[in-house]
Amino acid sequence: MASLKKPASGKKAPASKSGHAVSPLAPKSFPTLPPLAGVRLATVAAGIRYKQRTDVMMAVFAPGTQVAGVFTKSKTASAPVLWCQKQMLHGTTRMLVVNSGNANAFTGKAGIDGVREIADSAAAVMGCRPQDVLMASTGVIGEPLPISKITSVLSGLVSEGAAGNWRAAAEAIMTTDTFPKLATASAMIDGVKVTLNGIAKGSGMIAPDMSTMLAFVFTDAALPAPVLAEMLKAGAGPSFNSITVDSDTSTSDTLLLFATGKGAKHGAIAKASDKRLTDFRRKLDALLLDLALAVVKDGEGAQKLIQVDVTGAENDAAARRIGLSIANSPLVKTAIAGNDANWGRIVMAVGKAGEMADRDKLKISFGGKLVAEKGARAAKYDEAAATKAVSGREVEIAVDLGLGKGAARIYTCDFTHGYIDINGSYRS
Amino acid sequence: MASLKKPASGKKAPASKSGHAVSPLAPKSFPTLPPLAGVRLATVAAGIRYKQRTDVMMAVFAPGTQVAGVFTKSKTASAPVLWCQKQMLHGTTRMLVVNSGNANAFTGKAGIDGVREIADSAAAVMGCRPQDVLMASTGVIGEPLPISKITSVLSGLVSEGAAGNWRAAAEAIMTTDTFPKLATASAMIDGVKVTLNGIAKGSGMIAPDMSTMLAFVFTDAALPAPVLAEMLKAGAGPSFNSITVDSDTSTSDTLLLFATGKGAKHGAIAKASDKRLTDFRRKLDALLLDLALAVVKDGEGAQKLIQVDVTGAENDAAARRIGLSIANSPLVKTAIAGNDANWGRIVMAVGKAGEMADRDKLKISFGGKLVAEKGARAAKYDEAAATKAVSGREVEIAVDLGLGKGAARIYTCDFTHGYIDINGSYRS
Repeated sequence: MASLKKPASGKKAPASKSGHAVSPLAPKSFPTLPPLAGVRLATVAAGIRYKQRTDVMMAVFAPGTQVAGVFTKSKTASAPVLWCQKQMLHGTTRMLVVNSGNANAFTGKAGIDGVREIADSAAAVMGCRPQDVLMASTGVIGEPLPISKITSVLSGLVSEGAAGNWRAAAEAIMTTDTFPKLATASAMIDGVKVTLNGIAKGSGMIAPDMSTMLAFVFTDAALPAPVLAEMLKAGAGPSFNSITVDSDTSTSDTLLLFATGKGAKHGAIAKASDKRLTDFRRKLDALLLDLALAVVKDGEGAQKLIQVDVTGAENDAAARRIGLSIANSPLVKTAIAGNDANWGRIVMAVGKAGEMADRDKLKISFGGKLVAEKGARAAKYDEAAATKAVSGREVEIAVDLGLGKGAARIYTCDFTHGYIDINGSYRS
Repeated sequence: MASLKKPASGKKAPASKSGHAVSPLAPKSFPTLPPLAGVRLATVAAGIRYKQRTDVMMAVFAPGTQVAGVFTKSKTASAPVLWCQKQMLHGTTRMLVVNSGNANAFTGKAGIDGVREIADSAAAVMGCRPQDVLMASTGVIGEPLPISKITSVLSGLVSEGAAGNWRAAAEAIMTTDTFPKLATASAMIDGVKVTLNGIAKGSGMIAPDMSTMLAFVFTDAALPAPVLAEMLKAGAGPSFNSITVDSDTSTSDTLLLFATGKGAKHGAIAKASDKRLTDFRRKLDALLLDLALAVVKDGEGAQKLIQVDVTGAENDAAARRIGLSIANSPLVKTAIAGNDANWGRIVMAVGKAGEMADRDKLKISFGGKLVAEKGARAAKYDEAAATKAVSGREVEIAVDLGLGKGAARIYTCDFTHGYIDINGSYRS
């Protein structure tokens, strides 16, 4: 309970690049991502919003690179999201330009024009078509994006681009993040080894129904855009679309999957259902989940990672809604923050979800310990054991509705003073 | 911003009965409710959960008293809610027994049996039928309710019941509330003056889609249950069903309207559409809104009352969903807590609501000052004026979609350290 009283921005925790204390859920060390044939990366401090930290990242791709994307479903999507959605139709790209500090969302015609201006400038520097330039922006909504601060650094970034700058790239896209998010894997396609590298950012304004904030996954495999699109959509469901920090869906969420085709040669693949993709798909799904969990672990003010498993629901959609009702409940999240095994609030969250539920069939467990069943506290309920189950860095909540076969798993974090500290002063 | 850093439970604010600092939004003084013919009230400290504070309230009604109710839509509704819903079918009552400290929700067969036991005991003491006894419980979910602590005080409460104990009644039903909620009005029916008295409780686990927590309204008018039911349902829409503190819908929400028929005689009224009810209905609606706003003003940790007006939406339902999306957004509520005129987060909340929205037609105002229009920051945007508009105790957010005639008004409070202090330690 003592930890609850101490905001996450307390003096003892080391400060991150964003100025906030590094999440206690941050990994002890970060993976070193190998160079990936067909991708060069560069970063720069362009002074868009932050002082003395990198805020523009560029990835340059080999000709013929295929791309697929998943984007926010927000009705007020940002200018770069609208641009990228249009470019997915042709499925090829040569460049990705990302800035942090400003979302270029709700910036009117100037925002739309600015995206076009950046694409034109980048295309001229690169010698490609404007539609081969993808963009993503993250940060404050509604502030005009200083376009010239980006266009003026494009030439330098193209010439400086090098293989292997993954850590720097992951850091340049951070906003309130307290640690960079990186993941790597290798997979076999058709007996040939390919590489998967991914980076992501995200900390607040995180809710599913989209691909959360920014995540970019790169492979040297040779896979056509429609195959990438199908695998990405499937993989985003149980990863980025199953996490929530604060139920607030961003205007800017962008998840892109690039395939350069410059790795070791494997047989041509035309369909996502091709059995030779089994291993690749499994590794891709794991990598997407890894990155999505890193976002939750860096949830604003997070002190704990919470996994909510819902089983026995009427169907999967019902299970998902119940899982989100639990994972988004401020009362559940503050109770967990306070090491309080308050399963009554889980009952409340199940009840408010609006899905079929039968009080007498409902079972609730914390960390595998049954705490409620048969419409009441479990007969063998042990307060000390239940408290212990919610007191660690990782908490497992399981709810079985006892009605059908619907299941879902949602990830979230607890709700602490840190969230309020960060969000009561982010913009000003 | 300084106030944000200081939890609501800071030492300087006076402590309430619940031990938390009294809300800065509490009224300076409370209305004195007049006696109401046909209602006697009594309270006692039964030691259900709290020490040395009243926690059981009884209202005894004259024979023939009519009643109507609105209840939580939770799928895990409490035992007393299920009991009351059944009793609404006959529409008459002689007694209301309310306890605080324990919600008797998710308490299994023991909870259901306990409700019946209380009804039987109360009926025996009172000399009425068990089905004439209504009940409401509020507090912790999942703890067995100590039934005998209630049955043992019933006899004393019946004999002590007196006209005029309204303040004591309002205090006995409080849980984390920091001030009692009372309202009174008089209305003319058919040229005859009648009285309306109301009490309510509620502070956390407050979200619409129900009548929030507990609210009881009493009149000496002679109105049949179906007329009461129709007026109550209509009145609950823009009042209790338009407030939210934390989006968490309770298992126990109960709003009851009693009519004793013991006031001055007026002509018989058979239909809610009777024009002689015009004044009564207007006064009832105002009283319901008054009580509902008192609940928001006592929202856990609340430092500000926020009114969200949505106009120009596709239809009223869309306006309501957009209003709730704004009012339930942790990012909007923390920004307001921090006196940050962060209208970008309003854009985000409109976007995530999933309703029709056109970035270029959207207008956003704080306190009547236009801050965004035509898809960007308003031309005459004035940061100092916008900041001032969100820095007071009462904040008005207005959003015009520019699409249709749909409108809604939602009330909420800001999101502060106080909420986390209260909810990280409520149960334990």
